[in-house]
Amino acid sequence: MDATELRELGQQFRVDSIRCAAAAKSGHPTSGMSAADLMAVLLANHLRYDFDDPKNAANDRLVFSKGHASTLLYAIFRAAGAISDEELLEYRSFGSMLEGHPTPLIPWVDVATGSLGQGLPIGVGMALAGKYLDRLPSHVWILCGDSEMAEGSMWEAFEHAAHYKLDNLTAIIDVNRLGQRGETMVGWDVDVYRDRAHAFGWEAIEIDGHDVEAIDRAYTEAASTSGKPTVVIARTIKGKGVKAVENQPGWHGKALDDPDAAIEELGGLRNIRVEVSMPARGEAHRFDGGELELPRYEVGDEVATRKAYGEALAALGAARGDVVALDGEVGNSTFAEIFAKAHPDRYFEMYIAEQQLLAAAVGLQARGWNAFASTFAAFFSRAYDLIRMAAISRANLRLAGSHAGVSIGEDGPSQMALEDIASLRAIHSSTVLHPCDANQTAKLVAAMADTEGIVFLRTLRPNTPVIYDADEEFAVGGSRVVRSADDEDDVTLVGAGVTVHEALKAAEALEEEGISARVIDLYSIKPIDADTLQAAAETTGRIVTVEDHFPEGGVGDAVIAALANSDERPRVVQLAVREMPRSGKPEELMSAYGIDAEHIAAAARQLVSAKVAAS
Amino acid sequence: MDATELRELGQQFRVDSIRCAAAAKSGHPTSGMSAADLMAVLLANHLRYDFDDPKNAANDRLVFSKGHASTLLYAIFRAAGAISDEELLEYRSFGSMLEGHPTPLIPWVDVATGSLGQGLPIGVGMALAGKYLDRLPSHVWILCGDSEMAEGSMWEAFEHAAHYKLDNLTAIIDVNRLGQRGETMVGWDVDVYRDRAHAFGWEAIEIDGHDVEAIDRAYTEAASTSGKPTVVIARTIKGKGVKAVENQPGWHGKALDDPDAAIEELGGLRNIRVEVSMPARGEAHRFDGGELELPRYEVGDEVATRKAYGEALAALGAARGDVVALDGEVGNSTFAEIFAKAHPDRYFEMYIAEQQLLAAAVGLQARGWNAFASTFAAFFSRAYDLIRMAAISRANLRLAGSHAGVSIGEDGPSQMALEDIASLRAIHSSTVLHPCDANQTAKLVAAMADTEGIVFLRTLRPNTPVIYDADEEFAVGGSRVVRSADDEDDVTLVGAGVTVHEALKAAEALEEEGISARVIDLYSIKPIDADTLQAAAETTGRIVTVEDHFPEGGVGDAVIAALANSDERPRVVQLAVREMPRSGKPEELMSAYGIDAEHIAAAARQLVSAKVAAS
Repeated sequence: MDATELRELGQQFRVDSIRCAAAAKSGHPTSGMSAADLMAVLLANHLRYDFDDPKNAANDRLVFSKGHASTLLYAIFRAAGAISDEELLEYRSFGSMLEGHPTPLIPWVDVATGSLGQGLPIGVGMALAGKYLDRLPSHVWILCGDSEMAEGSMWEAFEHAAHYKLDNLTAIIDVNRLGQRGETMVGWDVDVYRDRAHAFGWEAIEIDGHDVEAIDRAYTEAASTSGKPTVVIARTIKGKGVKAVENQPGWHGKALDDPDAAIEELGGLRNIRVEVSMPARGEAHRFDGGELELPRYEVGDEVATRKAYGEALAALGAARGDVVALDGEVGNSTFAEIFAKAHPDRYFEMYIAEQQLLAAAVGLQARGWNAFASTFAAFFSRAYDLIRMAAISRANLRLAGSHAGVSIGEDGPSQMALEDIASLRAIHSSTVLHPCDANQTAKLVAAMADTEGIVFLRTLRPNTPVIYDADEEFAVGGSRVVRSADDEDDVTLVGAGVTVHEALKAAEALEEEGISARVIDLYSIKPIDADTLQAAAETTGRIVTVEDHFPEGGVGDAVIAALANSDERPRVVQLAVREMPRSGKPEELMSAYGIDAEHIAAAARQLVSAKVAAS
Repeated sequence: MDATELRELGQQFRVDSIRCAAAAKSGHPTSGMSAADLMAVLLANHLRYDFDDPKNAANDRLVFSKGHASTLLYAIFRAAGAISDEELLEYRSFGSMLEGHPTPLIPWVDVATGSLGQGLPIGVGMALAGKYLDRLPSHVWILCGDSEMAEGSMWEAFEHAAHYKLDNLTAIIDVNRLGQRGETMVGWDVDVYRDRAHAFGWEAIEIDGHDVEAIDRAYTEAASTSGKPTVVIARTIKGKGVKAVENQPGWHGKALDDPDAAIEELGGLRNIRVEVSMPARGEAHRFDGGELELPRYEVGDEVATRKAYGEALAALGAARGDVVALDGEVGNSTFAEIFAKAHPDRYFEMYIAEQQLLAAAVGLQARGWNAFASTFAAFFSRAYDLIRMAAISRANLRLAGSHAGVSIGEDGPSQMALEDIASLRAIHSSTVLHPCDANQTAKLVAAMADTEGIVFLRTLRPNTPVIYDADEEFAVGGSRVVRSADDEDDVTLVGAGVTVHEALKAAEALEEEGISARVIDLYSIKPIDADTLQAAAETTGRIVTVEDHFPEGGVGDAVIAALANSDERPRVVQLAVREMPRSGKPEELMSAYGIDAEHIAAAARQLVSAKVAAS
């Protein structure tokens, strides 16, 4: 398209932004209007995308990191012929896929945005996939707001994109100066963004974001820059084109007062249809697979489940060419390094930048790769918003968090995951797994690759005894009764991870006193095996849960909730970490915080004697 | 101290790092050894700190952002005479305050570190307090690792420190090149850090981090730089002074193999005692207070609880000079803007940088200010690791999160807090409050200021009816029975926030059918009012919980857990959001996800008829 046509397309995007926000009586039309020319030039002259085949690996990708400018994105879809005018005007109404912020319910949206500062780091993941895995000349375009440049996650993305030489990535910053409640820290001082971009190793191009010819040249330059990513820093005007709102504070996130007058001021309704360029033909590179040969461990050996994670993941990678792994600079602790050594082409070091770690995994899975991300379980909390948003992205993510709970010992509470089960159970579509031995870990790692949604595997720092044969199978949603005298059981002990071993020791001690304890290994905390718990409740009527985690939202709460609306609602004593832990030896800490065999046995004893007294 | 003495002190710090790690058989001595000279010069010639009066507002502050270098920090404490050699050698043993990573169990440690990238942004909060609130010439010194420069939170701190012209803040980057598992992205290319610092508006000084004279000059320059913060970028050698480990990979987080030989190589044990300079005398500025006059709302009016938050906070600020507020660029949504207008001297805009928002609040409270931080409740998830660490810091934080749940409507799931109750209940020492009306909100805002630990207030976007008189009192840990026929009640409905109003409507509908429903407003979700729930369980035997939140770890789970070990364990039906919500009108969404009056009434009806059938 030539400049005149591009300007017309920009006006159409503005008009459509205003129209759909007016229909919805909400939305962020002024945030779309500032970037309208930027997107007109991209759609008409640069984007290569097959709207009939959105999963095509050769497609360029367009992500609205400033997801609140959804009116503009949907105006693009209308101009591309992907949605009708009627669909556009159903914006934000219940049942429409055109939600307030974009989600992958829309076929041409790969990831949800709306929490700022996430689109660019996710784009890094997409660009890693394009350059190093798919190995196709597709380009990743990210529309960023200037307000979100205050998010640290953006600078994680800047650093990683340069480190990985992602010349297939272009960030477009819509510098309209105004955030929700006032000016940004930088305002229109666009040289600041340029200097920061240069210091982080990017090519930077400053333009007037309403000069379509300058935009066109900038994109051409961005697409042809080699060896580094490019940022187009576009000075723009919020609400551009409508005097009543242009560059005015107080117009963020509001439909216009007089949409008809605004549309008239913009030259009225247009129906320009853009023929978007097709992607280059080409097949994505694929890595070879083979037979799955998981590691096998001898019963009675002592192996850390984190070690089994690394060994199983490397085996999975040998079997499946779609498996890739990332770690946050602790691969020698999580044992992701075993995968990295076995499959260096499919491993990405993300350094100490957990938001980028998660975002890259989201970007990789959006391009069809099976991404496993690992760090200390405690440090996934750094990326909790990314995980929350990944659920809205309907992402399939595999997270492995090591160093769970007080059993890590001397390093102290900053390194101990004690809220991870609670926070990750609360994520929609999540699965929470916590194996207690190496063979079980290996089986669950293999299962993760085929489990939909956000799957979290919690592993242990210390070695634990192998208690399961290497041929045993473990399904997501299952549990294992590891000790039982069937109808003779007096009490049930439920543990997961390290506490399974403590519960087994407690059961042995109780047996000497004539108390028969059923022990359940609740390795799948979500989904939970309610049937096995129900059966235990019916037989024993009393349950002790024990977890290396704070009490709220953990194993105990999950067990109680699973039985809350049942006929049998057993009395449950929850053993959990109830103080802020200190440094010390693992066994000292397990004892001090009341989750070792001795405390489990004491709790069981008390429950059983109460039962006897009551009967 | 002169250069010779400083070098000796540096060697003492190295020797002590090795000694205590050897005693503990763990720790990160090589990470302390790289920064030993940097800290020797600081302690001897620049730090102004009264070890006998650590809370003195005029003290400088020293924060180890690289908290794993705790051996070095503890060596400093020994040199300053604050701890004995015996205490030093109890490092990491159970019961010692000298934990694996520093915590405020140590009188001279203000905040816990050990999750990287947090010390500097917390230092920004301390420096804000020193410059704008205390108004004293104290200086904030932050020792940073180079690995943690990959954390986006560090760049949030860089931007905010420059924006607020924090010339009382100095960051010292110990560029030892090596992270846990290998080289950082930047390595020893220290000019990169300089360029980034300049681009973010800082003064930057590059030095050899083992040249004590250069260090001395750099600190003098840093302390005298005006109008902007300074970063000292020090090229150092990890494990400096001991050939076996110097600049070697594989020595992160390990005690040395042969500590005796290493100590000998370093010149042996030393007992240099440093007389640390005293702070300048001076009283911290304090703001005036007065009588507390909370806003009052008329029963029957419709007011959003987020609005009541802002109005109550402004009133609290008028009454108490220690109250300060911060917001993440959404003050016109959270209504923190009402406080900002009333008390501009005590309000800090943190822009869209939630990690810095939380970290600043932690820093402010560490200097004795009563900090209230607000954003959308969903976006506190961006700072979840900061909140987790704040609990380890034993911080008193007040967090107000608006826009809870599907009741926000059209903006869609990215803006809806649906995991916040679960994730924040799991934080140790936390309090979780969720008021349903404006008068209750006002009372709880006042209560927050005197509640220890991490206090979270969840507010609503839509207006809700005022149902409580302005004179009613609401204690943390309480609940309110808002409707009851005492012993005649057939079923109990438990809600919080918007669902209280739905439960009341349901109770009215049920009454017409002859079913008497007790309605409990569980405004304090943690701590929870178990007695009131227990009484309801005894009377009605059946409970419906309803919450605008995902089911795991929310109101329902809290209620069930509170009754799990009681004699009366009622059957509980949990109504909660069980799908990923869409955009739509609030009432459409409340209905679609089964948490409106109609669904509550249906659940109650079913429970009651089951009870009748069973009896």
